[in-house]
Amino acid sequence: MELLDFEGVISATLTPTVDLREKMAELVEFHLRNGVRGFFVLGTTGEGAKLGRERRAEVAEAAVEAAGSKGLVIIHVGSSDIDTVLWLAKHAARIGAHAVSAVAPFYYRYDSQSLINFYQTLANTVDIPVLLYNNPGRQGYSIPFEELSRILETVRPRLGLKDSSGDPDILLQAIQRYGGERFLASGGDHLMAYSFIIGYRAHISSLATIYPEIAAGIHRYVRDGRIEEALRLQNLLNRVRAILKKIGPDLASNRYALLRRGVDIGGPIPPTRQLTEQEAETLDRLLPREEEIAVKP
Amino acid sequence: MELLDFEGVISATLTPTVDLREKMAELVEFHLRNGVRGFFVLGTTGEGAKLGRERRAEVAEAAVEAAGSKGLVIIHVGSSDIDTVLWLAKHAARIGAHAVSAVAPFYYRYDSQSLINFYQTLANTVDIPVLLYNNPGRQGYSIPFEELSRILETVRPRLGLKDSSGDPDILLQAIQRYGGERFLASGGDHLMAYSFIIGYRAHISSLATIYPEIAAGIHRYVRDGRIEEALRLQNLLNRVRAILKKIGPDLASNRYALLRRGVDIGGPIPPTRQLTEQEAETLDRLLPREEEIAVKP
Amino acid sequence: MELLDFEGVISATLTPTVDLREKMAELVEFHLRNGVRGFFVLGTTGEGAKLGRERRAEVAEAAVEAAGSKGLVIIHVGSSDIDTVLWLAKHAARIGAHAVSAVAPFYYRYDSQSLINFYQTLANTVDIPVLLYNNPGRQGYSIPFEELSRILETVRPRLGLKDSSGDPDILLQAIQRYGGERFLASGGDHLMAYSFIIGYRAHISSLATIYPEIAAGIHRYVRDGRIEEALRLQNLLNRVRAILKKIGPDLASNRYALLRRGVDIGGPIPPTRQLTEQEAETLDRLLPREEEIAVKP
Amino acid sequence: MELLDFEGVISATLTPTVDLREKMAELVEFHLRNGVRGFFVLGTTGEGAKLGRERRAEVAEAAVEAAGSKGLVIIHVGSSDIDTVLWLAKHAARIGAHAVSAVAPFYYRYDSQSLINFYQTLANTVDIPVLLYNNPGRQGYSIPFEELSRILETVRPRLGLKDSSGDPDILLQAIQRYGGERFLASGGDHLMAYSFIIGYRAHISSLATIYPEIAAGIHRYVRDGRIEEALRLQNLLNRVRAILKKIGPDLASNRYALLRRGVDIGGPIPPTRQLTEQEAETLDRLLPREEEIAVKP
Repeated sequence: MELLDFEGVISATLTPTVDLREKMAELVEFHLRNGVRGFFVLGTTGEGAKLGRERRAEVAEAAVEAAGSKGLVIIHVGSSDIDTVLWLAKHAARIGAHAVSAVAPFYYRYDSQSLINFYQTLANTVDIPVLLYNNPGRQGYSIPFEELSRILETVRPRLGLKDSSGDPDILLQAIQRYGGERFLASGGDHLMAYSFIIGYRAHISSLATIYPEIAAGIHRYVRDGRIEEALRLQNLLNRVRAILKKIGPDLASNRYALLRRGVDIGGPIPPTRQLTEQEAETLDRLLPREEEIAVKP
Repeated sequence: MELLDFEGVISATLTPTVDLREKMAELVEFHLRNGVRGFFVLGTTGEGAKLGRERRAEVAEAAVEAAGSKGLVIIHVGSSDIDTVLWLAKHAARIGAHAVSAVAPFYYRYDSQSLINFYQTLANTVDIPVLLYNNPGRQGYSIPFEELSRILETVRPRLGLKDSSGDPDILLQAIQRYGGERFLASGGDHLMAYSFIIGYRAHISSLATIYPEIAAGIHRYVRDGRIEEALRLQNLLNRVRAILKKIGPDLASNRYALLRRGVDIGGPIPPTRQLTEQEAETLDRLLPREEEIAVKP
Repeated sequence: MELLDFEGVISATLTPTVDLREKMAELVEFHLRNGVRGFFVLGTTGEGAKLGRERRAEVAEAAVEAAGSKGLVIIHVGSSDIDTVLWLAKHAARIGAHAVSAVAPFYYRYDSQSLINFYQTLANTVDIPVLLYNNPGRQGYSIPFEELSRILETVRPRLGLKDSSGDPDILLQAIQRYGGERFLASGGDHLMAYSFIIGYRAHISSLATIYPEIAAGIHRYVRDGRIEEALRLQNLLNRVRAILKKIGPDLASNRYALLRRGVDIGGPIPPTRQLTEQEAETLDRLLPREEEIAVKP
Repeated sequence: MELLDFEGVISATLTPTVDLREKMAELVEFHLRNGVRGFFVLGTTGEGAKLGRERRAEVAEAAVEAAGSKGLVIIHVGSSDIDTVLWLAKHAARIGAHAVSAVAPFYYRYDSQSLINFYQTLANTVDIPVLLYNNPGRQGYSIPFEELSRILETVRPRLGLKDSSGDPDILLQAIQRYGGERFLASGGDHLMAYSFIIGYRAHISSLATIYPEIAAGIHRYVRDGRIEEALRLQNLLNRVRAILKKIGPDLASNRYALLRRGVDIGGPIPPTRQLTEQEAETLDRLLPREEEIAVKP
């Protein structure tokens, strides 16, 4: 699958903690059935940074096995240390992932020349496309657009971008400067409709792994010029997002919300604690029922 | 060496990038000669989080070999994933480190119950003492004192604490509540004199790895009741700290400052870039000369 | 003029520091000529908070005199003290302003019940419409949407809203919940096209006071379904915005940019310093030329 | 009273909302009886920024009348607009205040040249000493020490400083550079013992207006070299501070805490809401009893 040809929603896929291969296949089916055929695996939602490299390799294998022939599979290989990044990237390329992505290296702050070193080393190491994943809240520092731009234009071959800055101005500049020639994906679910409206062809969505039909619906409505309906779905998505962020650790509540929809991928990855009973009950009360999720064609 | 008996400055030791064993030995000698006999290895200053686990293991071995019989060696094993933390902790215990420490897990935020899970798992894995390393700026979230306290009192056996919160109130509460019964070390070099004054017996100092005599001097002066002289050294230390933070990436300028003092441990760990020539010249101009560093006995 | 009937761009009008009446009239003409007929006077861009109440009253009078019969005039009466807010609001009502607005009281943080007290007192004091102006960066604290909502639904008669939170989720929730029934204006110029797309009828724009044709163009293009052209203007606006924020104090560079366009309203209000010569030259070089600003019909 | 001769604790005096003259006199007596004879009136704790200028003038008069002959009276005249600052400063000088102070102008951010304009204009307007009050949390921006320093050294006659930055490094630099030659007061109650230890002769204390004996005790103990006892009081002060910040709006809970000690100065200044009954009960339960406050001589 050609990265630049992809159009639609990419799910920031959750990582099963039980029966890995089987559950990953079930989760992928759940996505495909609901209109999502792109997978961003082991990213922030997929909790890659919480797993040792061998475990990450197993998850990547399960994802490629389940989805590699049916959709787009991007493996997130970001880490605070570049040794691990390169080890994971080589593995992902070897098993047939379509692309790898790495969040800007975290724990320390890096200036743009250091980031160029980082992404150039990564791009030199694998033959598949590489995406810079910009997530200031997780990496711990912002990268102004002029620096992002310098990195994108210096690193060879042509780096792609997943931007989760939450900054509408960065999203707009990126699409106007690089649209069509680079693979660009927006992130940040509250900006999904906006991103499609301003011209993004791909959005990597955290909530698509739980509510794929809502995310796919937003994409389809915008594509068809039905902006008002897209915005109603966007508002629904925002409500769900606020609930999941508020009740319990979101890395646990995401799994619970998916369980309620019939897909049981196991409890949270340690050390994240389980939901309390009270939190689960609150989620039962607040989360939308299936009939509220149903998206009109 | 008993952790609770240790008194003085612990150096947040820099990590050589060339001739590891030889350079680590040289660096340890430099510390001992200048009054510092504690070593916090592979922490924030030591750039542990930037190295793959095998390289971290080698650095830990070099440190224990060079300093294990002459001082206190604490290996920092923090990571965003607990698999790596446990792997490193087991290794550190096996090679004879005196203690391990882990920064609160980063990339995601964790609540206190999740942190209890984390530190309890770590404490269950090794027989040597374990220190919680609280560094909000690096881990990405604050831990209020009541939560720190809950963690310290829940995790068995008795967890120690390295607090780099920069919050004088947390430092004071910790020493008044746990002083004498737990191993407590302050961090944050601008609070070094203050920490010793309020009763800390150990301070883990970033700048001690470059200017051990200044750090050791602050400790000695406070111990001897020569507060005014301690504060003059503290002010000198703060000036150096401001310069190193301002000129170039500090992970590169720290190494350069040490080189100027005659200890060459190699250039920055990738992807951090080298200093530019201009930055090096600025540091030459701004950093104190040897005669300014000399500490009166 | 009925507030709810207004549609289009409202300029966050700059405040002349010389020849007040004459210059205000000139500035109003410049706006009308370029498609902007709404005026938000003495707000953040208009520097109301920097002027004593008598001076604010004079500026309000000049604005009502120049624009009251030709457009919509909203006087910003926000202050850290409610005595001044009420004094200014009574004055604005007396001279014939169409509405008053007050930023959430600043210097201290206030919870929602305290904010209800504030806006209810203000609404009780004047007979003209009142707008809550939400600007977290200036007031110093965020108001979550559920609190905004509680305030809007408690204070009688129906409070309007100017939201400059910069949060696309708050903008979307507000328009979906209160659109049509309340006067709602978006703020934050980088979200102007987005706001009109999601259904806002009014946007209060900082840059409209310097580049009214660009702001009016964005509104017109969105209204006419020419999204791509709207987004190109939005991107141009964002570039100008970034330049004005970066070079010199923006309260001085805004005036200089307007001067370059032929409207001289005098230098910065003390204590803001003048631009240096070098800053002025940099602005000359970076700001768009008149032919770049021209908006196609 | 000569400013430079003053030594001890200065109370950031609360402002009575009933029976102004009588209650201010009672509050002043309460301070004097408990070892505090300095008064910083209408500052952050005194809620100056929430009152119209006429009301501020009345409060200043009540304070000078009650305390002018028995202690040091500094009137805070800070505002977002310089017109009000100058009006209040002239009034304070006229009624016999010993000094005026102004927080760095808020609502907007100002660079150091603009701040020099501000403080120079203020210093030119009155004949009594002027203090720069640096409170990043309230003014909305930080002033690095080199900029503070530039302001202090440029504005004539010699500006004093109240530093509430909460930054131990700024406190240390200021006292080492300007100690003895300028009037310097530390702020930030959690740094009170630290400030006296590093050489400050005056600390402006928020909690001294409720617990003057604790604040005065910290000063006395440090002066007498009884550091351990000073730190115990500091810890007690920190506990009270945490409670008052946590339960209810602190501008209401401060008044309630004082009421519980027998001094009734009236309820909160609008729009700050009243405490709920539950908040009052929680405070009753958590705040220290009189016997816990008693300070040994």
